[in-house]
Amino acid sequence: MPKPEILDPQGKAVQGALPRLGFTGVTDVRQGKRFEIELEGEVTDAVLAEVEKMAETLLSNPVIENYTVSVEQ
Amino acid sequence: MPKPEILDPQGKAVQGALPRLGFTGVTDVRQGKRFEIELEGEVTDAVLAEVEKMAETLLSNPVIENYTVSVEQ
Repeated sequence: MPKPEILDPQGKAVQGALPRLGFTGVTDVRQGKRFEIELEGEVTDAVLAEVEKMAETLLSNPVIENYTVSVEQ
Repeated sequence: MPKPEILDPQGKAVQGALPRLGFTGVTDVRQGKRFEIELEGEVTDAVLAEVEKMAETLLSNPVIENYTVSVEQ
């Protein structure tokens, strides 16, 4: 997701469109990316550390984006 | 996220880049969008139904994308 201090024009565009489409009560919209990564074998701590490194070096731009990694079985 | 039967060239590009960067054991990568929506007041069933409708009509393209809605307090 874009860092809180980074402008997010896509999110703002969505937020601006919502009232025009009849949706109210939305105070903020942020748009980011989501990656679903399938892995071989079990998710050990070492594997998770690899995925964190992947997220930091390849999947996100750490200058403007934050990331979170979560595991779904 | 792109539906399983839809080609995902961005995901495939990431999957192709991973071994070159020394990451192994990844069997599939899919890339999609993530929206963080902040709402006024409590998340009742009615509000959640509104957000589902938002996801279906504005935030996703139901021809090629699936979506899930989850609540974080």
